[in-house]
Amino acid sequence: MNKIKIALLGLGNVGKGVWEIFKNNTDEIIRRSASELEISKILVKDVNKDRGIDVPKEILTENIDDILNDDSIQIIVELMGGVDPASDYVVRAIKNKKHVVTANKQMIATQGKELLDLAKKEGVLLYYEGSVAGGIPILKGIEESLTANKIEEIVGIINGTTNYILTKMSLENMDFETALKEAQEKGYAEADPTSDIESYDAVYKLAILTSLSFGINVNVNDIYREGISKITSHDIQNAKEFGYTIKLLAIAKEKNDSLELRVHPTMIPLTHPLSNVNDSFNAILIKGNAVGDLMFYGRGAGSLPTGSAVAGDIISIVRNDMTLRSIALADNPDLQKRVLSREEFTSRYYLRLKVKDVSGVLGQISNILGKNDVSISSFIQKGQKDENNLVSIVFITHDTLEGNIMKSIEELKTLDVVDKIKNLIRVEKFI
Amino acid sequence: MNKIKIALLGLGNVGKGVWEIFKNNTDEIIRRSASELEISKILVKDVNKDRGIDVPKEILTENIDDILNDDSIQIIVELMGGVDPASDYVVRAIKNKKHVVTANKQMIATQGKELLDLAKKEGVLLYYEGSVAGGIPILKGIEESLTANKIEEIVGIINGTTNYILTKMSLENMDFETALKEAQEKGYAEADPTSDIESYDAVYKLAILTSLSFGINVNVNDIYREGISKITSHDIQNAKEFGYTIKLLAIAKEKNDSLELRVHPTMIPLTHPLSNVNDSFNAILIKGNAVGDLMFYGRGAGSLPTGSAVAGDIISIVRNDMTLRSIALADNPDLQKRVLSREEFTSRYYLRLKVKDVSGVLGQISNILGKNDVSISSFIQKGQKDENNLVSIVFITHDTLEGNIMKSIEELKTLDVVDKIKNLIRVEKFI
Repeated sequence: MNKIKIALLGLGNVGKGVWEIFKNNTDEIIRRSASELEISKILVKDVNKDRGIDVPKEILTENIDDILNDDSIQIIVELMGGVDPASDYVVRAIKNKKHVVTANKQMIATQGKELLDLAKKEGVLLYYEGSVAGGIPILKGIEESLTANKIEEIVGIINGTTNYILTKMSLENMDFETALKEAQEKGYAEADPTSDIESYDAVYKLAILTSLSFGINVNVNDIYREGISKITSHDIQNAKEFGYTIKLLAIAKEKNDSLELRVHPTMIPLTHPLSNVNDSFNAILIKGNAVGDLMFYGRGAGSLPTGSAVAGDIISIVRNDMTLRSIALADNPDLQKRVLSREEFTSRYYLRLKVKDVSGVLGQISNILGKNDVSISSFIQKGQKDENNLVSIVFITHDTLEGNIMKSIEELKTLDVVDKIKNLIRVEKFI
Repeated sequence: MNKIKIALLGLGNVGKGVWEIFKNNTDEIIRRSASELEISKILVKDVNKDRGIDVPKEILTENIDDILNDDSIQIIVELMGGVDPASDYVVRAIKNKKHVVTANKQMIATQGKELLDLAKKEGVLLYYEGSVAGGIPILKGIEESLTANKIEEIVGIINGTTNYILTKMSLENMDFETALKEAQEKGYAEADPTSDIESYDAVYKLAILTSLSFGINVNVNDIYREGISKITSHDIQNAKEFGYTIKLLAIAKEKNDSLELRVHPTMIPLTHPLSNVNDSFNAILIKGNAVGDLMFYGRGAGSLPTGSAVAGDIISIVRNDMTLRSIALADNPDLQKRVLSREEFTSRYYLRLKVKDVSGVLGQISNILGKNDVSISSFIQKGQKDENNLVSIVFITHDTLEGNIMKSIEELKTLDVVDKIKNLIRVEKFI
C-alpha cells in the first residue's frame, strides 16, 4: 500500500487532536485514503515538555529544518497559529514542494491569496478547512458543492467563545464579566480574550468565507467590526421582550455587485434556527440563488473537531493523488466588488437611550429620527425613573441606512432631554 | 476555453431547475469549472408538449440513441426517476464511456453498487448528490470531509412531504387527512402519496447514507420502515405535554459492529435542534467520533435546490478533469456489519392504550411491563372516561429492547381491562 509521511508543526490543542485521530481511526483513514499515513515528525518548542499524550519522543524536533529538508515528508500540517513564523515555514515548505494543510485563520485571511498563488506555481496543494468553524465542512461545502450557485448572503455564528458568553448571559442571566470568567475557567476563552471578544477572530473567518463565496480577495481591514463587551443584561432583557436573542454574527451580503461585510452583536428573532445555536457551537447560514437557505451546524473549535477538519484535508490531498487544485480563494482576478462603508449598511436598529422624564421628550426624538428618514417599528419605555429623574427608552427601527442612524445619534446627543445614548444594536430580520 | 457537452434525460421538475441554473448562473459556472458547459440534448417523452420554459425545441429528442450515440456528449444527467428504464440508460451511457450524474435515489439505493463498479471498470464517474436531501451537500460532506471520522450515528429528517404534514399537524392542529390534502394542493405530495407517507422514499435515502457512512452495502429490505399515517392529533397533543414533537426520522446507528437501521415517526425533545426543522425543510444530524455532532439543514427537494446539487456534481466532474473517482458506496467489500432485527432495537417508547376505568388497571399493566424488563419513565391518564367507560392512558418508558416492548404488547392485549393498544411511537432522547 501507498505510504505517505506527514509532519506536524505544533503539538498544541489541535495537534494533539490530529495525533489522536490518526491513532484511533486508523482503519477509517486507510479505507478512505487507500494509503498508510504516518506522522513521522513533529515540530515543538521544547521536546522535553510533558504533554500528557503518548507521542514517541524521537519524532519530536525543535528544528524546522529537520522537517523542511526531509525529502520523505510529503505533507506539512501547520498548527502553530499566528503569522510569524508560521507563514515563513509554510512558504519554505511549499518551495520545497511539500503540500500544506493549515488551520491558521489569521494567516489565510491575511496572506492566503499569495500562499495559494505560490502553491499553484510550485505545483503543490494548500488546504485550510480547519481555519473556519472547526469541524464544520463549510469551506469544501462552498467550494465543492455550491459551485452552481450565485451566493447571495452568508450569516454565521463563527466564534465559540463569544457565543458561549452570550448564551450564559441570555439563558442564565449572567452579566458579561461573570460569563467571560466562566468561559476562561472552562478553557473556552484565553487569558487575554481580546481576539475573541473584540471579534478579530470572527473577522478573519469572515474574510476567508467571503473570498471563497464571492470570488474576491478581502482585506480584513475593510470588514466592519464590533465586539460584544458593550452588551449588557439590559439589552439581553429588552431583546427577549421584543422576541429576539443577541448573537455575534458575521455577515456578508452581496448587493448590486457591492459587498456589505460586518461582524457585530445582532438581535435575531427567537423563531430563527440561528437563535437556538448555543454554548460554543457554531452555525453558518448560506443563501444561494439556486439552493436557497442552507445551514451548517456543529463544533466550531476544539481538539478533535478541528482535528477532524485537518485530518480530512490530509486525506483529500492523499486520495486525489496530490494532483488536484487547492481550494481557491478569490479565484477570479478580474472580479471587482466594492466593499460598502458603514454609512451604506442597511439594517434595522435597536436604540437604547437614557432621557429626562419630562413631557415632549418623545416628540423631540421622533422629530430627529423622522427628519433623517428613520422610521420606528417598536418602542418601549423601561422601568421607573431613577434618582436623577431619568428613564430608559428603547426603539427598534424599520430598515434604514446606517448613515441616517449615525446622523440621528449625533443630533440626539445635542438634545437637552437626552442624557445618554446607551447602546445601538443591529437587528437582523432574515427575509 | 474547454467546452463540454451535456445531455439531460428528463425535463421534469429537477430537469427544469438544472436548465434554469445553467442559464442564470453562467458566470459562476464558468468561473468554477473553467469551462463552457452546454446542455446540448434533452430526452423527453413528447417533444411537442408545452413545458412553460424556453428550451429550444431542436435540442429535444424522444430517442435515447440520439444521446447515447452522440460522441460529442461527455456527461449524461439522468433525471427520469424510477429504475426502469433509467438504470438501463445509465448502464448504456457508462458503457459508452460517458460520465453520469443522477438524482435517482431508488436506482442508487437498489443498484448503486453495481453501477459504481461498472463506472469504475469503464473509467467514468457516477455522481448522485441530488439523490439525498435535495440541495443539502450531505453526500460530499460525508465522503469528502468527514473522512477521518468513524461515523457513529445518523439521524435525519429526509422527507419533505411528511415533514410538511407533521408540521401542519403540530403547529396548526390539522388532522392527518387535511394536512395531506393541503400538501397535495401545494405540490409537496403526489396524487399517490404512498412512497412518501409510508416512508419508502426515506428508506432509499437512508440506504444511501448508510452505505457511504458505514462502508457497507445495505439492502433496502433490511431497513425497518413505518409510515406516518397512524399518527393522530391525540399523539401530537400528548407529545407536546411531555415536551416532545413528532418527526419522521431516518436513523442509522452503529453498535458493536452491528447496525440499527430504521425509519419511523419519532418523538424528539422540543429543545433539540431537529425539532425546529419545519415545513418541507430537511436536516441531517451526523455524529462522528472526532467531529462530534454536525447538522446540515436546507431544502430537501424542489426544482432549484435539487438542481443545485445536480449542477454541482456536473461541475465537480468537469473541473476534476474527469479523472477522479466517483463517490464510493460501500467501498470496502471485506467489511461486514450485521443489520439488527426489530427485536434488537433499543429505544424509549410511547405507548397509548384504551383501558377500562376500573381499579387495579394500572397494577395489572405495570406487572406485565415489569415482568418484561420495561420500566416506566412518565405516565399520564388522558381526559374523562367515554360512553363505554373507557379511558386513555399514556406511558413513556426508559430505554428498553424493542423485543421486550413487543412481548409486553402481546400480553397486554390479553388483559380483560385493556380495550385496545392505540399507538406505539419511539422516543429519541439524543444523549
